[in-house]
Amino acid sequence: MHQLRGTELKRLHRTWRRRNAFRLTLLLDNVGNPYNVGSIVRSAAALGVEHLYLAGESASPGAAKAQKTALGTDRYLTSSQYATVAEAAAAARSAGFWVVGLELADPAVPLAELELARDVCLVLGHEDHGISTAGLAACDAVGYIPLTGRVGSLNVASAAAIACYEVRRQHWSTAGEVPEA
Amino acid sequence: MHQLRGTELKRLHRTWRRRNAFRLTLLLDNVGNPYNVGSIVRSAAALGVEHLYLAGESASPGAAKAQKTALGTDRYLTSSQYATVAEAAAAARSAGFWVVGLELADPAVPLAELELARDVCLVLGHEDHGISTAGLAACDAVGYIPLTGRVGSLNVASAAAIACYEVRRQHWSTAGEVPEA
Repeated sequence: MHQLRGTELKRLHRTWRRRNAFRLTLLLDNVGNPYNVGSIVRSAAALGVEHLYLAGESASPGAAKAQKTALGTDRYLTSSQYATVAEAAAAARSAGFWVVGLELADPAVPLAELELARDVCLVLGHEDHGISTAGLAACDAVGYIPLTGRVGSLNVASAAAIACYEVRRQHWSTAGEVPEA
Repeated sequence: MHQLRGTELKRLHRTWRRRNAFRLTLLLDNVGNPYNVGSIVRSAAALGVEHLYLAGESASPGAAKAQKTALGTDRYLTSSQYATVAEAAAAARSAGFWVVGLELADPAVPLAELELARDVCLVLGHEDHGISTAGLAACDAVGYIPLTGRVGSLNVASAAAIACYEVRRQHWSTAGEVPEA
């Protein structure tokens, strides 16, 4: 048992990139903390997110504080800015994405119960207030991450990592047999 | 469509807590950055992790910097300290846990391909160096999170959130029908 290094690691990543049967983008609805935005960008880049729709007062991935957690990974994504979440969601939809909010809402279903094997734009909301009312209205569907501990919320960057993983897990499951490490 | 509040939210979380068919713990093998440890603790507490095994030079959840990201959630977990990762893994194993490393290693399988519907202790490694050789040797199995972007690594706290989610997803799948939100 040893850690994968150099070319072994590159080969494994390349194999998995080919399994991205569908596209994945993110829409940030007023995610204000630049450290969180940078952290979201890093996980997004690692999971093959291609574009960020930035709505309202969301921090820019290029901000100095965002760079402290993004560590330069923002160069692997494109981004575009919108005054309102409705405009951002409309842009994602017209680019072919199913717009899925991540929120503990009624009605909502566990993310894993949504049919995500398609082009997905995940909507993430403000650290304290979650997705705005306008944001929820702009979503095609809303899913939540079940919480089973004594703490009733996740950090938005941790939630984003989990949600991107869940979408990709469903994408990969349509891509045939799992490759060897 | 509205955000869940107050008692609605509490009821949903309680329903999901009842679905924790198995136990989940974490072993930190020299996770040195206290902000990362605090962030791991917050996600862990939200996903019902009951105990942290701290090995080697891992930062303490009680450290001032860890508290900035844990936001007081460390009170929902217990923790114990070990000089070596071998001792920590032995303690987890004798408490009934299957010790599963999270590492891009050979041989390793995607985490989702492991049979995790049992009591699991997830092992997380150092920010730069990953799980130590001694740590890998102490694991019963090793799984990895497939990366499908241009970035070859995840922040350890984001990886921890994803891994805890994947374990819980498998735990919940044994717990019958999904409850309504």
